[in-house]
Amino acid sequence: MPEAKLRDLRARFGEYADVKAAIALLSWDQEVYMPPKGAAARGQQLATLSGLAHRLLTSGEMGALLKDLGEAGDGLGPDDRALVFETLHDYTRATQLPEAFVRRFAEEQSKAYEAWVRARRASDFAMFRPHLETMVDLLRRKADYHGYEQTPYDALLADYERGMTTARLREIFGELAPKQRDLVARIAASGPQREPAWLDQEWPEPAQEALTVDVLRAMGYDFEAGRQDKSAHPFTTNFGIRDVRITTRFNPRDPFSALMGSMHEGGHALYEQGFPPEDERSVLAEAPSLGIHESQSRLWENLIGRSLPFWRWCTPLLQRHFPDQARALNPEAAYRALNRVAPSLIRVEADECTYNLHVILRFEIEVALIEGELAVADLPDVWNGKIKDYLGLDVPDDARGCLQDIHWSHGAMGYFPTYALGNLYAAQLFEEIVEDIPALWTQVEHGDFAPLLAWLREHVHRHGRRKKAVEIVRDATGREPDAQAFLRYLECKFGGNREGS
Amino acid sequence: MPEAKLRDLRARFGEYADVKAAIALLSWDQEVYMPPKGAAARGQQLATLSGLAHRLLTSGEMGALLKDLGEAGDGLGPDDRALVFETLHDYTRATQLPEAFVRRFAEEQSKAYEAWVRARRASDFAMFRPHLETMVDLLRRKADYHGYEQTPYDALLADYERGMTTARLREIFGELAPKQRDLVARIAASGPQREPAWLDQEWPEPAQEALTVDVLRAMGYDFEAGRQDKSAHPFTTNFGIRDVRITTRFNPRDPFSALMGSMHEGGHALYEQGFPPEDERSVLAEAPSLGIHESQSRLWENLIGRSLPFWRWCTPLLQRHFPDQARALNPEAAYRALNRVAPSLIRVEADECTYNLHVILRFEIEVALIEGELAVADLPDVWNGKIKDYLGLDVPDDARGCLQDIHWSHGAMGYFPTYALGNLYAAQLFEEIVEDIPALWTQVEHGDFAPLLAWLREHVHRHGRRKKAVEIVRDATGREPDAQAFLRYLECKFGGNREGS
Repeated sequence: MPEAKLRDLRARFGEYADVKAAIALLSWDQEVYMPPKGAAARGQQLATLSGLAHRLLTSGEMGALLKDLGEAGDGLGPDDRALVFETLHDYTRATQLPEAFVRRFAEEQSKAYEAWVRARRASDFAMFRPHLETMVDLLRRKADYHGYEQTPYDALLADYERGMTTARLREIFGELAPKQRDLVARIAASGPQREPAWLDQEWPEPAQEALTVDVLRAMGYDFEAGRQDKSAHPFTTNFGIRDVRITTRFNPRDPFSALMGSMHEGGHALYEQGFPPEDERSVLAEAPSLGIHESQSRLWENLIGRSLPFWRWCTPLLQRHFPDQARALNPEAAYRALNRVAPSLIRVEADECTYNLHVILRFEIEVALIEGELAVADLPDVWNGKIKDYLGLDVPDDARGCLQDIHWSHGAMGYFPTYALGNLYAAQLFEEIVEDIPALWTQVEHGDFAPLLAWLREHVHRHGRRKKAVEIVRDATGREPDAQAFLRYLECKFGGNREGS
Repeated sequence: MPEAKLRDLRARFGEYADVKAAIALLSWDQEVYMPPKGAAARGQQLATLSGLAHRLLTSGEMGALLKDLGEAGDGLGPDDRALVFETLHDYTRATQLPEAFVRRFAEEQSKAYEAWVRARRASDFAMFRPHLETMVDLLRRKADYHGYEQTPYDALLADYERGMTTARLREIFGELAPKQRDLVARIAASGPQREPAWLDQEWPEPAQEALTVDVLRAMGYDFEAGRQDKSAHPFTTNFGIRDVRITTRFNPRDPFSALMGSMHEGGHALYEQGFPPEDERSVLAEAPSLGIHESQSRLWENLIGRSLPFWRWCTPLLQRHFPDQARALNPEAAYRALNRVAPSLIRVEADECTYNLHVILRFEIEVALIEGELAVADLPDVWNGKIKDYLGLDVPDDARGCLQDIHWSHGAMGYFPTYALGNLYAAQLFEEIVEDIPALWTQVEHGDFAPLLAWLREHVHRHGRRKKAVEIVRDATGREPDAQAFLRYLECKFGGNREGS
């Protein structure tokens, strides 16, 4: 009996997964190939398919099946139990929001997004303010619909980082912030780190692209089960485990921008190509949180891609693709160019030492907005004060201040912390990796990433949603996730022993 | 009251159209960019979305709305009446087939397609035979479900060329076949037409692509509302009136292959970009038949693209893109190279004089199969006999004989005739165009295609499904569609006055 119901559940969720895949393709195409006049119709197509997906997930039949299977829980094997439990989780979250609210939220998102685009262009927060007020109001109601124990922000966090709480984030970030701020101040005191002269050349796009492809192949990205295209903002998406695509962008004056982008998205994509094939079309073929997903991209981009051993391997490769531009380059110079530290105003351009500070100030502001401690009207002042406090910089205008990110216009609060958690998870996992694979750095110097990938497959990828992020980190490292490993990594890389630039 | 129901109808059909657009994108991507390992999941996604689309179109609510609106018929304006009538037509056709039959048909299609791929590779009809037998059987049942007056083949034709009958096709083709066969024999008697020596060079793909883009722009194809990509088999698809995409393919030894392919698909695409914007997401934003759709592609490809005035304009353009390869080329030589006539075994490579003969023999075979006059087992013999009769050629193997086309493996019978009808409609419309636009050929010589496009927009494109194909031709030319104009065109171009090659 449970067997027949499980089959039915798989089939129903499979239909939902198929519609989600179509949505993902409509979105991918929109960013990558869609001609400009196709935008209006595409918006409607996305709205229709999102509605259909919602109906499929929240149907009465789905609810009845999940209820029966949930009651049969103990009779199921561990995989089936995980399948039922996780599907029930998504079903429950989706049914907690009334349809009218979901529609209203989507409408306000569109309006807020358009207002944000205009406000950022004009660098005028006042144009965005009423929309953000509405958004904050709707997010509070959303938290109420989902329910929470300590703070409504917990309910929002659950969309992105299940199992993480506001209280725990306060602890972790409370330890991280002063130490990172301190490190940044020490580095700043040692004088400015300038862009090296050799970087200031023309780096043709075709050679940049060929370089990214070589590196992605070496990482283990399967181009038979994915592809790389160009888009304004790099991203990873999938239409199944065997079709995981990434995008990158090229800066003709800087070959590292595309390469680091490709390695970052490649890290995400290796995760999604690493789900067990038998989980295809099921809720299990997903990462349990954005933070753990981000740990994979950051690990490849920063811990590998910005390491000296990597550049011992990659410098000759770069020289093959750019025989003129990179003739005199050595690994140390490439390494230094990629690891300059300087406080800056823009999160997405921040280095490893300052990045989390950008996240932490957003987290503090989001919590204060959702808990009603901060009025939207006061946001720019608070933002600018925190930038001064954490980074020592003056914010010249809203465009380079509180209007720089798209997230709030989409009503995404609780999302930013996952970027910092990705850094922490990555560092904590990586300490374990270096211990488990003593030859790791020698392998990296030879462009052999297979043992590293095998470790990630074993300890992270293959679990899909069978484990929460915190379980993955705990089981792999023997410790709860915390800030220690990341702080050790920063201190080791950027602290006292650091080479001059 | 009808206003509210019309709004409801538009919204419901709009959802259906959105899902169809997603299906079209999944299919486009499959042909153009999908990595190979994505195929299995893509098949499932297409099956799920096709099922959803069917459910949306055939829902009880849709049926009730259409019934009410159909009864209100006379109170509606002409556009609304067309909308209701045409939506009802699609609803009725879709509901005539039981769901179990639709599923069975789709399953047999997959099996037959795979068997056909293997059979063609092995050039062994016996491997395909049982699947084709099943298909013919299912097609007869399909015809029974839809109903027909004279022959079951009429019911199949209705999927592709509504309003056309088997009897009328027999008349038209009966007139066409002997005259075309006669013309081909006369041409063959004047000796073989060889490929000119200057064609046998390397024509680099980037320059070929740039040439196709220049010509498509000149034709009036809007690249802001479409794009051109590469695929194994060129096709046109759309995801709305403002996103109409084409594909082409490049032969490095022949620049005409891609150019004629792009002009052909460009003709299809101009049709779809020419539907009234207010018809978006409605049944009216479609061509009424494949034949009339094909008339647009053939008109641009053959009547324009293979004309001497076109090459007076296009030869310098070709020379700009291929300064070395085309230095000594003149318009007459290009024209002759593009208009060589020679009986051949493969339909898709056939010239204008022989093409319809390939279609007619398929039509005769399909009718005989569906009417039970021909057993599938006898197909190869009959095929080979007809090729000998119509084209004077011996068929060396099944791969170059009755296994060459994909259509029957998809259960598409009644489709082939639309290719020939496209040629006839195009020629008949074109006689009228030349009369209405006396300066047409001078305009073409100057690359000015705007008046031609304006004529097609006015007389063909803007009607969408408001008129049947036969009405479009009749209203534009004052005559029922027939073979006369096409025969006059062939005789004039390839008959006695033809230049030697």
